Amino acid sequence: METRGIFLNISPLDHRYYQSNKELFDSLSCYLSEEASVRYCAKVELALLKTHLALNKLDSEQLIKAIDVAQEKISPEIVYQEEEKTQHNIRALVNTLKPLLPEDIRHFVHMGATSVDILDTANALKIRDAVQNVIIPELQALEVKLCELCEQEAETPQVGRTHGQYAVPITFGFTVAEYVSRLGKSIIKILDFSKDLRGKLAGAVGAYNATSMITSDPYELERTCLALLELKPSDHSTQMVEPEYLLRLLLEINTAFGIIANLADDFRNLQRSEIDEIREYFSPTQVGSSTMPQKRNPWNCEHVKSLWKAFAPRVMTFYMDQISEHQRDLTNSASGRFVAEYIAGFAAAVRRMNKIISGLSVNREQLLTTLEERAGSSVLAEPAYILLSQQGEADAHEIIRKLTLKANTEHITFVEAMKQDPAVWEKVTARLAQITGQNADTFFSSPANYRGMAAIKAHELAQEWRKRMQGLNEAGNRSR
Amino acid sequence: METRGIFLNISPLDHRYYQSNKELFDSLSCYLSEEASVRYCAKVELALLKTHLALNKLDSEQLIKAIDVAQEKISPEIVYQEEEKTQHNIRALVNTLKPLLPEDIRHFVHMGATSVDILDTANALKIRDAVQNVIIPELQALEVKLCELCEQEAETPQVGRTHGQYAVPITFGFTVAEYVSRLGKSIIKILDFSKDLRGKLAGAVGAYNATSMITSDPYELERTCLALLELKPSDHSTQMVEPEYLLRLLLEINTAFGIIANLADDFRNLQRSEIDEIREYFSPTQVGSSTMPQKRNPWNCEHVKSLWKAFAPRVMTFYMDQISEHQRDLTNSASGRFVAEYIAGFAAAVRRMNKIISGLSVNREQLLTTLEERAGSSVLAEPAYILLSQQGEADAHEIIRKLTLKANTEHITFVEAMKQDPAVWEKVTARLAQITGQNADTFFSSPANYRGMAAIKAHELAQEWRKRMQGLNEAGNRSR
Amino acid sequence: METRGIFLNISPLDHRYYQSNKELFDSLSCYLSEEASVRYCAKVELALLKTHLALNKLDSEQLIKAIDVAQEKISPEIVYQEEEKTQHNIRALVNTLKPLLPEDIRHFVHMGATSVDILDTANALKIRDAVQNVIIPELQALEVKLCELCEQEAETPQVGRTHGQYAVPITFGFTVAEYVSRLGKSIIKILDFSKDLRGKLAGAVGAYNATSMITSDPYELERTCLALLELKPSDHSTQMVEPEYLLRLLLEINTAFGIIANLADDFRNLQRSEIDEIREYFSPTQVGSSTMPQKRNPWNCEHVKSLWKAFAPRVMTFYMDQISEHQRDLTNSASGRFVAEYIAGFAAAVRRMNKIISGLSVNREQLLTTLEERAGSSVLAEPAYILLSQQGEADAHEIIRKLTLKANTEHITFVEAMKQDPAVWEKVTARLAQITGQNADTFFSSPANYRGMAAIKAHELAQEWRKRMQGLNEAGNRSR
Amino acid sequence: METRGIFLNISPLDHRYYQSNKELFDSLSCYLSEEASVRYCAKVELALLKTHLALNKLDSEQLIKAIDVAQEKISPEIVYQEEEKTQHNIRALVNTLKPLLPEDIRHFVHMGATSVDILDTANALKIRDAVQNVIIPELQALEVKLCELCEQEAETPQVGRTHGQYAVPITFGFTVAEYVSRLGKSIIKILDFSKDLRGKLAGAVGAYNATSMITSDPYELERTCLALLELKPSDHSTQMVEPEYLLRLLLEINTAFGIIANLADDFRNLQRSEIDEIREYFSPTQVGSSTMPQKRNPWNCEHVKSLWKAFAPRVMTFYMDQISEHQRDLTNSASGRFVAEYIAGFAAAVRRMNKIISGLSVNREQLLTTLEERAGSSVLAEPAYILLSQQGEADAHEIIRKLTLKANTEHITFVEAMKQDPAVWEKVTARLAQITGQNADTFFSSPANYRGMAAIKAHELAQEWRKRMQGLNEAGNRSR
Repeated sequence: METRGIFLNISPLDHRYYQSNKELFDSLSCYLSEEASVRYCAKVELALLKTHLALNKLDSEQLIKAIDVAQEKISPEIVYQEEEKTQHNIRALVNTLKPLLPEDIRHFVHMGATSVDILDTANALKIRDAVQNVIIPELQALEVKLCELCEQEAETPQVGRTHGQYAVPITFGFTVAEYVSRLGKSIIKILDFSKDLRGKLAGAVGAYNATSMITSDPYELERTCLALLELKPSDHSTQMVEPEYLLRLLLEINTAFGIIANLADDFRNLQRSEIDEIREYFSPTQVGSSTMPQKRNPWNCEHVKSLWKAFAPRVMTFYMDQISEHQRDLTNSASGRFVAEYIAGFAAAVRRMNKIISGLSVNREQLLTTLEERAGSSVLAEPAYILLSQQGEADAHEIIRKLTLKANTEHITFVEAMKQDPAVWEKVTARLAQITGQNADTFFSSPANYRGMAAIKAHELAQEWRKRMQGLNEAGNRSR
Repeated sequence: METRGIFLNISPLDHRYYQSNKELFDSLSCYLSEEASVRYCAKVELALLKTHLALNKLDSEQLIKAIDVAQEKISPEIVYQEEEKTQHNIRALVNTLKPLLPEDIRHFVHMGATSVDILDTANALKIRDAVQNVIIPELQALEVKLCELCEQEAETPQVGRTHGQYAVPITFGFTVAEYVSRLGKSIIKILDFSKDLRGKLAGAVGAYNATSMITSDPYELERTCLALLELKPSDHSTQMVEPEYLLRLLLEINTAFGIIANLADDFRNLQRSEIDEIREYFSPTQVGSSTMPQKRNPWNCEHVKSLWKAFAPRVMTFYMDQISEHQRDLTNSASGRFVAEYIAGFAAAVRRMNKIISGLSVNREQLLTTLEERAGSSVLAEPAYILLSQQGEADAHEIIRKLTLKANTEHITFVEAMKQDPAVWEKVTARLAQITGQNADTFFSSPANYRGMAAIKAHELAQEWRKRMQGLNEAGNRSR
Repeated sequence: METRGIFLNISPLDHRYYQSNKELFDSLSCYLSEEASVRYCAKVELALLKTHLALNKLDSEQLIKAIDVAQEKISPEIVYQEEEKTQHNIRALVNTLKPLLPEDIRHFVHMGATSVDILDTANALKIRDAVQNVIIPELQALEVKLCELCEQEAETPQVGRTHGQYAVPITFGFTVAEYVSRLGKSIIKILDFSKDLRGKLAGAVGAYNATSMITSDPYELERTCLALLELKPSDHSTQMVEPEYLLRLLLEINTAFGIIANLADDFRNLQRSEIDEIREYFSPTQVGSSTMPQKRNPWNCEHVKSLWKAFAPRVMTFYMDQISEHQRDLTNSASGRFVAEYIAGFAAAVRRMNKIISGLSVNREQLLTTLEERAGSSVLAEPAYILLSQQGEADAHEIIRKLTLKANTEHITFVEAMKQDPAVWEKVTARLAQITGQNADTFFSSPANYRGMAAIKAHELAQEWRKRMQGLNEAGNRSR
Repeated sequence: METRGIFLNISPLDHRYYQSNKELFDSLSCYLSEEASVRYCAKVELALLKTHLALNKLDSEQLIKAIDVAQEKISPEIVYQEEEKTQHNIRALVNTLKPLLPEDIRHFVHMGATSVDILDTANALKIRDAVQNVIIPELQALEVKLCELCEQEAETPQVGRTHGQYAVPITFGFTVAEYVSRLGKSIIKILDFSKDLRGKLAGAVGAYNATSMITSDPYELERTCLALLELKPSDHSTQMVEPEYLLRLLLEINTAFGIIANLADDFRNLQRSEIDEIREYFSPTQVGSSTMPQKRNPWNCEHVKSLWKAFAPRVMTFYMDQISEHQRDLTNSASGRFVAEYIAGFAAAVRRMNKIISGLSVNREQLLTTLEERAGSSVLAEPAYILLSQQGEADAHEIIRKLTLKANTEHITFVEAMKQDPAVWEKVTARLAQITGQNADTFFSSPANYRGMAAIKAHELAQEWRKRMQGLNEAGNRSR
């Protein structure tokens, strides 16, 4: 095969990101490279050939073996050479395949098919395989790691934040549980959509014109051929498979991409100098800045977010490729090829996020300090207002709001401000005792206890999704 | 209510498109206007209030009735007036609601909730209702009309086109069947996603902190309250419902938008002066151009395509709104409001497409002329090649390809060129007779017969989808 | 004019944002509403009529006055009524104008023009006027406020941050200077592009067919007519003005939108509970959360960012509208109407940012504390490494890097760690004295002094841009 | 250098499109590959080193030569090896450079710089060079070919089309002139923006902290260093150059991309079977379809459109990369790397369009037939209405519109219909004679003559832009 220096490539996916993810990219290459494309197309052509042989009762073991041998011999180089003459990639493949096959069955090659029967079916196959054999396992690994982190930190106190402001207490496991739940559902859907990719053998305009000349039941011919590849036919075809089978898969991958980007953003912010609640792994020999020796940057989280920015907008291309004039125009041809890039970019992001979670250190001390010391009793204004309301005070929110303003102005804590209003303090105290049996002084001095269902929810979701990920493995979702 | 001249509005949705779709936009207004937003928020607040009453065994018939009376009295004007003071829309609503309610239950209002419990739940409700009560019926009507057109033209010969070039014959019904199949599936999915919109009553950061002060089973409180609104809770909440429930619905609507845009593009092209196979309705008093009196333009199809260009890119906003820092930032607040616009824009496109199909005239004469006279026997090069292949000729495609070139160069028809090569003609003739019993001269003089399964497929899909659309009605999918 | 309750509108621009920006939106309405569209089209039609009169030496004062009177009488209502018949908006305008004019000149109305001559020219006019009369003044006001803030805080110490980590010291004025510089340039470009919007009077396909029947110099006719409107003709026209004149203006507005969104994001983060260096204005009666009485959220900054997310992706529509088949298709018609929305959305964001800057409070105490206490001497690792390098130490960066690790591990300050390595400390001390004459103990105990050109740059840019904004006013950039 | 089989690459740019554009992609590789990135960074580092030597009066010829020798020795392999240790690409470069340099100047390497000083400056250099040395020449070649086609077909009659419907006559050269004008202006702007890319040497947060420790005039140090690279400094820097210098270049490239996509779409449609006015080159051995031997498809035009669909949406990434928190976050790092891909994708589209124009055949016979026979006198309804108007008939448009309806209904030509209304025909005849001296029968039987300024405009624009493209060459716009 013609080779080229890696660093002469144009796409970061083929130099820098290949370099830093060789094993991942090598496994993607089996499905998403041009070599794989050619191989998958040959596979489809030969499935069609076998179908013809069966239809004509010529499918002897010997001929089937000869076909399998031919399949091994196909390489992109020879196909590309032929394409220089034909200027047509599938006709080049056909011309290349024929001499590799016994002479008496050569005329069956490609018979009844149009190029796009081969291309769209091969595309469904290779994307299905890439998703089921590489993407889903990567995602599962990430989901399982998130479940572990979620469970492990289920009880770790953290201040909840909205608008970047201290809100009410949660636990760090609860923070993680959000992603366990969102990503888990997306994984299931990606898998489902990958199973619904479709092939076709419906000919030039989808109306089975050619195969109607070959058999009286062209639907059956299509089903038989596709069944050899474990695919079902598109409900309707033009020259192409209906675009929405693939579109929905890509949209859901982009949905998962957004979830992972959100996680990256959250973890990036939790590493701010001022917050410092978690840290990515940073090796002792690693350099954070070429000029500021003290720097330890959350560069992996930043990288994941950046990949999302690079790839998420490509969703517009996927939508634009829905539109094809009449029984097809070719304006999705080049753009469709970049789907391979998109999937590789997503894989790189998932792998990096996996790495981040694996090396993550959680600063429990800081988490507690932030909640109890920095935020302090101000995050308990909510229960104070609730307790006051429950005592029948209709203006409870406004009363407590003014006490928080007073606390701010007078530089005292919220609980101190509350105590300065004995009527309020008494009602709050009374109600708290009634409902929880707790002492108000104790309650208002340990915000971490006001965590609602945070820890429970973290445990629940971690357990549920660990089980569902296990379930996926047992169901055996890998394509062959 | 404060009023404003319609033509002073900024958005085309609120002047020009409102003008031309009053009845449609009035029905959308019930769900998507600001008036509807306020009303839906009140509905959620009062469902919460009822839940509190039930929890406290205070839910007398009289109190429930008092609440329902209060609900009627809420209007956006008074809420907006209060908001000028609070600068907070939900607190304004709460302040406005309280005086409308019996004094002894006022303190229950909003208790345990955060604004977004109300807003996100109300949003799920109103989008669900708009989709189920307006969008789905519009789509169903369109799908049924497409089924009718598909069936009616199932046997009407048309030349299939790929790359804008004559390919092989189909029928016009088969052309329409593509959209019957693609749109049908999308309608089912839109409906399914609309049924999976979720609400929440999980408090400020989703951890049920507040409601844990009120009840020992805050999950149950949430379920009970949401059940009053026929909603289920989000699997996990931060301050917000997980964004993907709504995201997936919007992505699928955008998918349907793409399908309709593709249909518009196809029908636009079929109306070209040179093609002229179909025509939109054009009234006798209508003007096509202010300067070219002869013009009859496919302006409705153009309009639908243009709406797609205006709205499809907004999908990037939907994806960007997946990302919210920590337990939420507010950067989806303004952007989320434009979802109403997006749905209205889609509704306008569906309605217009409905109108196009209703008024469409099919020029069967021209359809036949194009196929039989303009395209002629050249579109039968495929069966000639297939027949020759079946006779064992491995180079059949290349032989026929050269005959088509010869026909071009010598300005003769393809069948004439083929006859000039007696060896080829004989084989083709023989095979054709063998397979189909047809005479070659007859076969090659009537391209319309080489239509494969086109007519059958058209009938099948029209029948299937008409039935499924009926099924939707029977299942009673309207929200109340 | 037909009116409608504001809260029944669909677009947030026509209810909520109109409510909160009435004066701004009323001024935008003069250019961007449908009422304005009709009025601008009439203006162009009548400019053409005047041109015909002049060409035919019929331009008496009396006739010109009659035309101006007619212009006043045109309203969208009557035009829309007529459009119900013609289904063509410009033909409707023409039909409506004629009876308002003296009978003997009616046949000149619209003569030689195609609708798009009128529409594209009117569009150029109204967008030019909206930009020059509303957008530019809003932007100028913002830029001037940023200059003031920049200058006022030019010397206020702040820690510089990269990757959200403490880097080296700057001043808060320097932070602001970034936006002074970026936004300033964008304002100039927006103004320039607005001045290069073009009109046309080149007829149905841009080839001056019709006007060639009227005059021997149709270029001159076009120039004369457009000069009445202070516009120049498009270099080439099809039925439309070349799309790039408007496209470039919109792209630059989107560029300014990105700059403002970046500013909003920066200011949003500086308001985090943990950072607290600045604060938006928050009134004493304002509510931050309906359940957490203590909340004060940076909701205005969030709002600006959210508007950017809603509008920035529309840039894809602008690019898609570049493509029009042959001498035009109409698929930019609906999409083009939403440009009005886009400009209004941008205006709302600029106005809000103006409000934020006006009410901003800068917490100088916290800014200093963060730099000197939280960040401390670690942000001086850079000068230590530079000084060491200058003493000829080639591995200076690595040596200092290890000292920062040591400081971390041993929980000592960086300067303490450095002192524990006398060889290093001595070199650093010596070089510092040599270059700056400063004492090392003093230097390393006051990070704020290591601010480079931060303060100077802030002063320079503030002064430069205040002057350039002034210059704009003097040049008199308002359209009339 | 580590090599890899081309067909194992993921990006179509690195296999299929590299294969079909080797010479083009090899020239792009000099600027856009990872190898080029490393080389450009070394160039910037060594320019900084030279600046330090000059500042210290150490810039002997011998040392300068030693530096130039070192520059030749840098390769991506050794830098990547070092990066495995440092996990920081620029620190790896610095570590790799030092041993290649005389020992006594090693400590000057990178002194005062932060990584992004090097990276952003190198990025400006390499994109400037790629644009000026590859993109601009490709665009110029295309523009010149368009000028030739425009001139050559300036007088070739064609029917103008709006909405895909016959409008009024033009010439094919006029059709091409649209693109001459639009693309020409875009080329000039791309060149201008490429000349305004900026570098920086302002340190970690842009405030010249480090260089202030080195020199009393850090602005001067920056200017001097950048002048060695023929760049100017960013007006303000954070850690990064202001993003808008590059953004505006990319937006303008996307603008040119849209223009070329529009051209591709127009030429694609003109090749429809039914229109057939032009044809791309199709070689005699080329295959159009693997199953339909007669097919000759406009696949090159389709390819260009498809590349546009693949790349145009990436503009959203460019806009998102405007936003970076505080003095920078790293979330533009991965996304910024794909700018190389974007430029390569654009280059491939331009090259393909060049090839299309080179091989284009214009079917003048068909062009004339369409205009005179298919469209016929109906495209002269406009001049009929104008002439009638000029005779003072205020309802001329409506009168003629009804005659075109009559012609349609009665299957007669428009001119026949007109003659059946003697009053109209007489007025039209009279006015035509008066203005043009032409006979009405002659005029209405040869639509090609009613072409307005089409031919003149084509000549004018072809000449103007040929001259301006020549001017670019003379100005010597290549970077070295």
